[in-house]
Amino acid sequence: MDIQDLTRTLNIKNDAKIVLLVADGLGGLPIRPGGGTELETASTPNLDELAKGGVCGLMNPVLPGITPGSGPGHLGLFGYDPLTYTIGRGALEAAGVDFELGPNDVAARGNFCTTDDSGNITDRRAGRISTEASTKLVEKLREIHVPGAEVFVEPVREHRFVVVFRGPGLQDQVDDSDPQATGVPPLDPQARDSDSRRTADVARQFIHQAREILKREQPANMLTLRGFARRPPLPSMQDVYGLNPAAIAVYPMYRGLARLVGMTVLPPPSNLAGQVDALSRHRDQFDFFFLHFKYTDSTGEDGNFDEKLRRIEELDAQIPRIVELKPEVLIVTADHSTPAALRSHSWHPVPVLLAAASCRPDQVARFGESDCLRGGLGQFEARYLLPLALAHAGRLQKFGA
Amino acid sequence: MDIQDLTRTLNIKNDAKIVLLVADGLGGLPIRPGGGTELETASTPNLDELAKGGVCGLMNPVLPGITPGSGPGHLGLFGYDPLTYTIGRGALEAAGVDFELGPNDVAARGNFCTTDDSGNITDRRAGRISTEASTKLVEKLREIHVPGAEVFVEPVREHRFVVVFRGPGLQDQVDDSDPQATGVPPLDPQARDSDSRRTADVARQFIHQAREILKREQPANMLTLRGFARRPPLPSMQDVYGLNPAAIAVYPMYRGLARLVGMTVLPPPSNLAGQVDALSRHRDQFDFFFLHFKYTDSTGEDGNFDEKLRRIEELDAQIPRIVELKPEVLIVTADHSTPAALRSHSWHPVPVLLAAASCRPDQVARFGESDCLRGGLGQFEARYLLPLALAHAGRLQKFGA
Repeated sequence: MDIQDLTRTLNIKNDAKIVLLVADGLGGLPIRPGGGTELETASTPNLDELAKGGVCGLMNPVLPGITPGSGPGHLGLFGYDPLTYTIGRGALEAAGVDFELGPNDVAARGNFCTTDDSGNITDRRAGRISTEASTKLVEKLREIHVPGAEVFVEPVREHRFVVVFRGPGLQDQVDDSDPQATGVPPLDPQARDSDSRRTADVARQFIHQAREILKREQPANMLTLRGFARRPPLPSMQDVYGLNPAAIAVYPMYRGLARLVGMTVLPPPSNLAGQVDALSRHRDQFDFFFLHFKYTDSTGEDGNFDEKLRRIEELDAQIPRIVELKPEVLIVTADHSTPAALRSHSWHPVPVLLAAASCRPDQVARFGESDCLRGGLGQFEARYLLPLALAHAGRLQKFGA
Repeated sequence: MDIQDLTRTLNIKNDAKIVLLVADGLGGLPIRPGGGTELETASTPNLDELAKGGVCGLMNPVLPGITPGSGPGHLGLFGYDPLTYTIGRGALEAAGVDFELGPNDVAARGNFCTTDDSGNITDRRAGRISTEASTKLVEKLREIHVPGAEVFVEPVREHRFVVVFRGPGLQDQVDDSDPQATGVPPLDPQARDSDSRRTADVARQFIHQAREILKREQPANMLTLRGFARRPPLPSMQDVYGLNPAAIAVYPMYRGLARLVGMTVLPPPSNLAGQVDALSRHRDQFDFFFLHFKYTDSTGEDGNFDEKLRRIEELDAQIPRIVELKPEVLIVTADHSTPAALRSHSWHPVPVLLAAASCRPDQVARFGESDCLRGGLGQFEARYLLPLALAHAGRLQKFGA
């Protein structure tokens, strides 16, 4: 039995507000022996104050040793077992450009590539062409019409784009056309089951027309498609928690992920201060708020320890403004670690801080990985965070008599 | 695979004794900032001494954030996954009045209620009539005879009673007659499957006769039934652990729960000192003893921090007498937290102390929530406690070669 089967029946409604502030990739590593992590090195007086009154811990986003992408990382934070609920790559790419998939849609991730005169791939990413160049090619691809299906093409970044096929009964069990190798031609998309044959057929017609459109372009004269996926059948947070949730995120990917679990996506502000403004404005309309802060991840990916530290301090500066709004439960955590030392997502547990009136005090007086290790929440799987938040918000009834 | 599948095949018998002392609702919260919990504030020299030589930790009764009732709380302590094994309300109420359900029994929780002249409910609890008044009504209900089934009615407390229908093939998939609302009449019990039709029919006849019997009573002139349930199919502790277990509990509910997992229920003493006397007397007849101490929970429910503290000290005073009996494994823990600050069961992890010769020492020198946080057992799900006890008792073989 999944814990969501419990929360579905045990949840009750009240006026309590829960704020989940996700500092993407917050968890880190020291860059020199004996040093602290990014979070430990940053000056975070407001988070430390919150830690004193709240309860801290460390969370494994998925399971020990598993480094999550944004999809599983956020699903875990939203309380969805990331091993049960998976989001296909095409669906995630669509979410990433704010494209809301409908019930008749199949999305695929597209790459512009370069082929030689025999049609063999010479560069799978077409020299990572600029987003600008890619966007122009996408506009040309929009001329494609396939009988019996609508086609949407959206640029992503550099050589990447997303294509969505819309038509009744389209299924997503279709193999990639990307051979994941050079010196060979792109593959013909093949259906893995009979229900997906029409999708494979539509994709083939799309690729055929695209080849004609692109053939005189340089260096991106061809494309590949992979990760065919429908919108994943995730139950909504309304259904499993009885929450009326809202997302306030600057980046489309996170708005898209929030939409997949039924959150209302509020108009995107341009920075964290604007996100807190929006939280303040909409405080009475929702009872759960997901605020996403991207820059702790992107600076980590850049390997820029000092800039990540600065971004953490920028986040810390907004904490008093959130505290002033008196949410019954305020959580600050991450979807995964992105240590500047590794320049990538990692599997290291993420620090978590939960502040509520019903916290059992621990000895943690500073929000950082080492201190969280001694925190009252211990180490646990991220998917249990949401039930804990509901409990502290007084939104869960007793289980069993 | 459940861990009970392992213990079923790996258990071996020896002369070691295990004592599980459950201080109901022991886990707590401070009542003022900077203060300790009830357990941390109480003077517990004997428990502290035990903690020094033993190993401590914190347990989630079910899962993080989930507040258990007595049923799931105790099933976890007995090593039964409380999400796999659930006890229906009727079965739990029967256990609570020491009524042992047989294989042909279906139990339901009854409420006396008040209805107006049109038969609509005006008070679902009949003004919470006294237990004395309720007991008199129960005696009248015992006059009811339904063809083809035996009927047992037992008072519980205030407006509550339990009714048991006994007859071959009676099943329990029957909807409540309690509409959970006022201004409407009680519902007619409906079977959710064809096997339960006879039970619904019997219940309807019981209700029909009860209406006649009660109609001139004041204020309880009607009743509702809910939580129809058979005895849950729990494997016995003999079967899954090879233990010969006994329960020594003052309150019937806990004797009933123990009976459901196959424990021999010893005659109830009137207090903890008497329970330890019984433990001493029966020491050689059993190898597992469950001792239940209720008052840490009831004082927590009353919101009486100081009285809960006093009850903890009362429990502490009995510890030397148990230690003197030299059980190979002595465990002190709780089925859930009941912080006086919340006046109710809560989801907070419970402190656990395990004393045995084979404990790997930790640094804990005091039995309290904060100290347990640094204990050698870490934080874990309560259902793993029993296997740990078996291991320390030398009652589990190696798994695999």
